[in-house]
Parts: sequence; C-alpha cells; structure tokens
Amino acid sequence: MPPLTQRLTLRLALENAPGMLARVTGVLEACGAELLATQRTDEQRHVVFRDVTVEVRDDAHGDAVAAALVEAEGVEVLSILDDVLAAHEGGKIRVELTRDVRGPQDLSLVYTPGVAKVCQLIAEDPVAAYRFTIRSNSVAIVTDGSAVLGLGDIGPLASLPVMEGKAMLLKSFGGVDAYPILVDEQDPDAFVDTVARIASGFGGINLEDIAAPRCFEIEGKLRQRLDVPVFHDDQHGTAVVVLAALMNAARVVDRELTSLRVVVQGVGSAGVAIVNLLRAAGITDIVPVDVDGILEPRRRGMDPIRRRLARQVNPRQLTGGKEVALRDADVFVGVSGPDSLPLELVQAMAPDRIVFALANPTPEIHPDLAREHVRVMATGRSDFPNQINNVLCFPGLFRGLLDAAATAVTDEMKVAAAAGIASIVGDDLAPDYVVPSPFDRSVVPVVAEAVAATARAQGHVRPGSSGSRDSESQAALHEAARRAVKRAVAARFAGEPGRSVPSSDD
Amino acid sequence: MPPLTQRLTLRLALENAPGMLARVTGVLEACGAELLATQRTDEQRHVVFRDVTVEVRDDAHGDAVAAALVEAEGVEVLSILDDVLAAHEGGKIRVELTRDVRGPQDLSLVYTPGVAKVCQLIAEDPVAAYRFTIRSNSVAIVTDGSAVLGLGDIGPLASLPVMEGKAMLLKSFGGVDAYPILVDEQDPDAFVDTVARIASGFGGINLEDIAAPRCFEIEGKLRQRLDVPVFHDDQHGTAVVVLAALMNAARVVDRELTSLRVVVQGVGSAGVAIVNLLRAAGITDIVPVDVDGILEPRRRGMDPIRRRLARQVNPRQLTGGKEVALRDADVFVGVSGPDSLPLELVQAMAPDRIVFALANPTPEIHPDLAREHVRVMATGRSDFPNQINNVLCFPGLFRGLLDAAATAVTDEMKVAAAAGIASIVGDDLAPDYVVPSPFDRSVVPVVAEAVAATARAQGHVRPGSSGSRDSESQAALHEAARRAVKRAVAARFAGEPGRSVPSSDD
Repeated sequence: MPPLTQRLTLRLALENAPGMLARVTGVLEACGAELLATQRTDEQRHVVFRDVTVEVRDDAHGDAVAAALVEAEGVEVLSILDDVLAAHEGGKIRVELTRDVRGPQDLSLVYTPGVAKVCQLIAEDPVAAYRFTIRSNSVAIVTDGSAVLGLGDIGPLASLPVMEGKAMLLKSFGGVDAYPILVDEQDPDAFVDTVARIASGFGGINLEDIAAPRCFEIEGKLRQRLDVPVFHDDQHGTAVVVLAALMNAARVVDRELTSLRVVVQGVGSAGVAIVNLLRAAGITDIVPVDVDGILEPRRRGMDPIRRRLARQVNPRQLTGGKEVALRDADVFVGVSGPDSLPLELVQAMAPDRIVFALANPTPEIHPDLAREHVRVMATGRSDFPNQINNVLCFPGLFRGLLDAAATAVTDEMKVAAAAGIASIVGDDLAPDYVVPSPFDRSVVPVVAEAVAATARAQGHVRPGSSGSRDSESQAALHEAARRAVKRAVAARFAGEPGRSVPSSDD
Repeated sequence: MPPLTQRLTLRLALENAPGMLARVTGVLEACGAELLATQRTDEQRHVVFRDVTVEVRDDAHGDAVAAALVEAEGVEVLSILDDVLAAHEGGKIRVELTRDVRGPQDLSLVYTPGVAKVCQLIAEDPVAAYRFTIRSNSVAIVTDGSAVLGLGDIGPLASLPVMEGKAMLLKSFGGVDAYPILVDEQDPDAFVDTVARIASGFGGINLEDIAAPRCFEIEGKLRQRLDVPVFHDDQHGTAVVVLAALMNAARVVDRELTSLRVVVQGVGSAGVAIVNLLRAAGITDIVPVDVDGILEPRRRGMDPIRRRLARQVNPRQLTGGKEVALRDADVFVGVSGPDSLPLELVQAMAPDRIVFALANPTPEIHPDLAREHVRVMATGRSDFPNQINNVLCFPGLFRGLLDAAATAVTDEMKVAAAAGIASIVGDDLAPDYVVPSPFDRSVVPVVAEAVAATARAQGHVRPGSSGSRDSESQAALHEAARRAVKRAVAARFAGEPGRSVPSSDD
C-alpha cells in the first residue's frame, strides 16, 4: 500500500440523531481513509454540521471517500477542502509593521519629516543601514524557477509557493526576514546583473531552485560582485547537512572522518557541492559517479564542471562504472535518482557501511532493503530515521551571517555549521540518530553562533558594523551607566554623615 | 521662533528626594524645551531612574538641554535617545507568517511535499497565483534613490528608510503587503529591464522618489511591458489628491471644475502629472509655468516633456512670465520652491482665488500671508488646514487595484480615486476643509471601491481572476450549501409523519 499522504477536510451535514458519527467513521474505515480530526462546527434542530479531516492516498481516493459518504443515509457532503490548498490560500507570508502608525506624531517619526534624518545618516555612512533598516535582518530568496522540487523548470511564478515556504522557515526557525524575488530571465549574465542591481536592500542572498550547471555560474559571479553572503541552498544546504551526518556517522563506526572513502553518486548542484564541502572538511578519497560512471580526467565528453571535479578528486584514479567506485568504499552519498543503488553494490562496500540515499521521495535504495547490510542509513524522508533536511542548516546559517553582518559565506563557515549541527546529537549518538530532528529548536542558535564566530575570526564582517556584538555592547553601555550613577550618588552623599554610600545598586 | 519639531528621550538618574522632578521641569522650561512625557523606569535606595521625552528645535538645542540638566544638582543624564532614530532602530517592517509551522504535519502542508501541488496548479494556470500566493496582495516599492524627499539623489540604500515607511503606510492604511526594492542603476533602460525581470512576484509596482525626467521614461516603458499596475506615486499620488481638493474647492466657490483657469507652477514629476490629470478630469485652461516662465510651443530650449506639455495646454497661448499666467487665473497650484509666489501675483488673480502652495516644508506663499486674499488655501503641511498628502491616495488606490486584480492603472481610475477622496468631505465642506485628514480611516475603502469598480468597468482586470468579488462568490457558495442541506433534510423527513420539515435553518 502506498503511504497516506494527502489531507482533505470534508464539511458534512449530518442528521441530528445518535450513531451518525459512527456511521461516518465506518464509511471512512471501509474506504481505507484515516480520520485525523473532526469538529462540530454548528448545530440546528435537525442537522449537525461537522468538519472531518481525513488522510487519503491521492485526489482519486479523496473523491471515492466523498462519494461513499454521499451514499450514506443521513450524511450530506457540503464541500471538500484540500488541506494543502487551504494552507496556501492568500499566500503564506505577510509584511508587517514593527510599530504602529496611529496619528500625525507617529507619521512624523517613521515617515516625513523625521525619516530624512535617518536617510542622511545612511548617506553619510552606509553602515548605518545595518542599524536603522530591515537590511540588517533581510534575505532575498532568489529563483528563476528552473529546478523546482521534483517538478523541473516550471518558471518563476509557479515556484512562488516554494519561495514563500522557504521564507516561512527562515522566519519561523531563524528569525530572518526573507522575501521572494522571482527573476524571469534565462541568461545567466542578465540574471546576475538583475540580482546585483537589487541586492543593496538585503543583508544576504539565498539562491533557490536554480538548475545546474547555470546555478554554478550565477552563484560564482554573484559572490564576486556582491559584498553580502550569496548561498545556493540546493547546493550548500544539502552539503552542510550531509557533512554533519557524516561527522557523526564516522563516530558511530569509530573512524576518522578524513580517512573515509566516499562515493558521491549524482553530479548535479547538490552533488558538486557535497564533493567540495567534504574536501574542505579534509576528506581526500572521494569518487564522484554519474550515469556514465566514474568521473576521471581521461573520461571524454564531460562539461567544465565535471572536468574540474575529475581533476580535483578520485585520488586512486579509478575508472569505470560505479561498481568499481563502490568496491571497498566506506560511504555512499546518493543525490541522484530512485532505486539506482542495487543491493549487491552495497554488499561490495567495505564493512561498517554508511549509506545516505537522498533521492526524494524514492531513495537510491529503500531503507528496509538496505538496513541489515549497513551500519548507518540516512535519507531525505521524514518517515525514516536520519532525515537529511536542509532546514537543519539554512535558518541557523543565515541567522549567524546576519548576526555578524557577514560580507561573504566561506567553506570554513559551512564546515562550522556542519559541526554545529553534528554537536547537537552529542551523547545520544546512535546509528539511527546521526542528525537532529528538523524541529529540534536547539539547532539554530548553535549553528548561528558557530557561523558568526567563524565569520568574525575570518574577518568577513562589515567594517564598522556591530554584528551580533550588539547585545554585548548594549550590556557594556548599561554597565557604564550604572557605574556613572554609583559614582554620582557616591559623590553626592560623600559629605553627608550618617548616610552610607550604597554598596550595590540592585 | 521656529517650531519645535524634534523629540528626544533623556534617560535620567535623579536623587531619590522630594522636588527633583520639579527641578527637571524647571530646567526644561528655562531652556525652551517642551516636556512631552515622563516615566519612572526604576527606583533604587538613593536613585530614581526616569525617562523624559522632550520636544526641541534641533540637535544643538537638544545638546544644550542635556548640558543644562547635567549642571542641575541631583540629576545625571545617562543617555540621550533620539526618538526618530529609536523609531527606525532595526528597521520598520518585518516578514511574518500567515500560519504557524510547528511540526512535520505543518511542514508537509506549507512546504514539501504538499507545496508541489500548488506549484503545479500555477504552472498550469498562472491566475492561480492570485489565489495561492502573496502576489495577490503584494506591491514592490521600487526606487533608485535619485529624488528622495528634499534630499535629492542620495542613492538607493540611503532611501530605504523612506521605502520602509511607505510600506508601513500601505499596510497600515491599505492592508497591502509592500516590500522595498532598491535598484542600483542609473540607466533608465537597464532600470526598466531590472524591474520587468523581477515583477512577476508582485501584483503592482509603486515607483518612488525617482528624479524627473527619468521617471517619465521609466514609468512609460514599464507600463508598456508589464501586465500589472505601475504607479509613480510622486507624480500621480500628488495629482490625485490635488484633483480631489480642487473638486471640492470648486464647490466652495460655486464653480464648475472644468471652467476653472489653472496655473501650475513647477514642471517636475508632480507638476507634469497634475497637468495631465486635470486635463483628464476635463479642465482645459491650464497654464504650466517654470522658472523660465510660461510653457508655450514657441519657447526655445525646452526638453521633450515640456515641449509636449506646451503643445497640449495653454489654450489662450499665453507667453511671458508667471505674472501673465496668474492674471485672472482662478487656481494656483505650486509644486515648485519656497516663497516663490509673491503676494501681488495672488492679488492679480480672479476673485474667489484658490491657492495650493505645496512646496514642502516652506510653501510657495505662507498661509498666514495669503489667507485674507484667497478663498481656499491648501499646503503640503500638517500644521495648516487642507493638507495635500499622498497618503490620502496610494493606500486606497493600491487596495482597489489589488482587489480587482487590475492589469493597469488608468487616468479614469485616478479620477475615480480623486472623486472618492473628495466625496468623504461631503456636507462638511468648508474653505478650510476641502480634503479629509490623512488619518481619516473612511477614505481607503471609498477610494478602493471607486478604483476597483472603474478597473472592472474598463475591463482592466486579469481574465479568470476573481478580484474583490471573492467575498460575493464565497457568500453565494455558502448560500448554495445551506439550500442543499435544507433540501436534503426536507427529503429525509418527508416520509416521517409527525415531524415537520424545518421551515428555517437558523
């Protein structure tokens, strides 16, 4: 049976008589639909109105359930609400005010004439924009809609629901104000020009769902042109969480991370970034494979990205198909296609196998099939242990970048983010717990602090900005004021006999 | 004495003794600073902490007040907070979620995998974006920062506080979600390309603080390229409110609007738009003047904008200086510079003079000087009657455009907006009340409805979108459901003797 994945809410009118709800649940059970929730919304003399939320397999199954209910005596189906559509109705984000505008006094402070003073401050010293505008906390979520989820190139407008969802997660998890910017432009240079021209309002750029290989060129050029962090989450977010999981998987099998032999299957945006980040973390024996086999310098017909990768990795100079790569490998990381890792290739790996099968929704090998042959298994799915989910990375990463007023994001910051994620697992480490849950709220502050500290240590912070040291300097200011008061009070009472200088001010 | 316009909050530590607050107020009075508010924030054994908010003339005056307080015995000034800066600290807008993301269930609805369904809907039918994304309610506030308030070309970043303020007003007054887009580009065509490429995420474009004549070219080209309304508020917002005020001023002097002889002084972005909108409203005798005198076809050295205006207006073919234009004129509209309208020129106008002196903060003629010589006087200032304030127009206008899912904004919609604003005044009409207060909350719904109705009547609405008729169709849907239930219940009880069919369902 495929898993039940779709939720519907059926608005029902029921005859006001005993046993009606039991009749409804009986119909649902007979149809194989699971009742998630029900609520009485209204009652009249002869009729009870009731919302029933059920989980079904797909639209057709939902229609069958509704039809069966219509047939039941005493049951009317008034309407069928799709819970997914209802959750998106009217959009999922809003722009709100940080303070009210109730009257002329407020207007004169936040708008004319008062605002002119703030504009002048920023004109004189652009760093003031970090203190007095949303730029200090804002990220543009930029896409051309060319590689959206598994849907492919659906264009920018159709990708907007994903970008809004991303903005929700950045806010909900990281406290970051993110706004979707849809760029309707296929040419990479025109795309880069467009983003560069509108970047000054944002403290960071999150590139999203841009197809490979265009994404590499776009990210590279924007990183060169802009003085704010540019981060393509589909590449580096995945890579950071994979590295975090691998750090802990190495602990499970009691190996040095850098000693692992790793095969990365899939050389799209995520695959390339994973290879690069694992190298940055010190792993040397990495063998990338794609549908044509192992990437190696002498292979013909490769694009520039593959040619460069082939020169940088594969130190044992393996050639051939992926069965060559997997022989005696410690780690398989798949960011490729469904059911593309046969069990016999897993069995050909070294003992203490680590398999990250991240194709979604259907992994390279099903966890139930691989389980008894591997020590650590991870997937992209929420219904199996060790979910490799970007939400473990990007909210904390951007929180840290903004806290530090960072001017760039570096490999060192990404490695620090991975180490931060890995550290949350701590002593609870187990084969089925190498990464925290995406909803573990302790992740973001740890990742943010690791990233901000690395940005400061590397000097990639805006000169003159306070970054996250704001809170420290505020505390210092407060402390100075307290000392000033103590001194003043001490001076005042110094000449008065019988009254003592307060020894503490609390 | 110049008016007190700046607010400071002084954080004080006072000796905990009787009479200390009186000492503070005495110092403030002696300095000519007005006490607006005071609040005790903390108390210790020997010290009382108190915030004192005062109104001062300027920064230097504020420093003098603080210095005088420092001199007072028993008073320590801990810090001085500028209320304007405090109101902008950290930015004035935020991105918020419309619904919580608490756990995996929520995530699967608003993000993967559920969101894919919404993306597919929009890919199949882009109009669905109006139902399921923020586009239905979003406006980009686009600027290059080239003509910001009276500050001139301070660049996009320094203009961000104004753009955020605009976003606050659009939300607070109109319920519109607006986000600032700073475009760092001087070339008009590159500017237009940039805005056109990122426009698909927005239901409307508000151009802001772009210098003339560039603003005309940019707006014209964007209107041609985009299928959403493009509105340069500095031009048309001012024009709409001027027209609204003039509609009512005509009533005050008991004249037909279209019979008025109007002089418009200043041919910048606002002046050109005012001339065009007054023409659209049926006024024919309009004479534009600038520092070089009357615009007329034979005048030499004019730019293309002035040449076109000169051909379109000035039907009596006046030539010469503004004294020629103002002789026997009924209306003066100034969008030019301070103190640029001598009293003798007002006196040369026809009886029942209407003078809108909109230069800000110093009008073309001071209201106190002009008052006894005119019937109706308006300015851009909040401290005199009849304030011509764009906030009377843009929130309601964009509300209406978004409600109707409008594809453009036309002169007819602007005239309808002006008539809507004017209608609020109603029977309370008086020489010092020809426009409502900017904080009159009854303005927005009236303007929105007028604009939306005109957009629909003109057919400038997105085919297939529901626009503001959503609420009607929801009601219709609900009514249909109620009738269905009544029928079903009636059918069910029809065969049961002794139980009557419910005659009403409430």
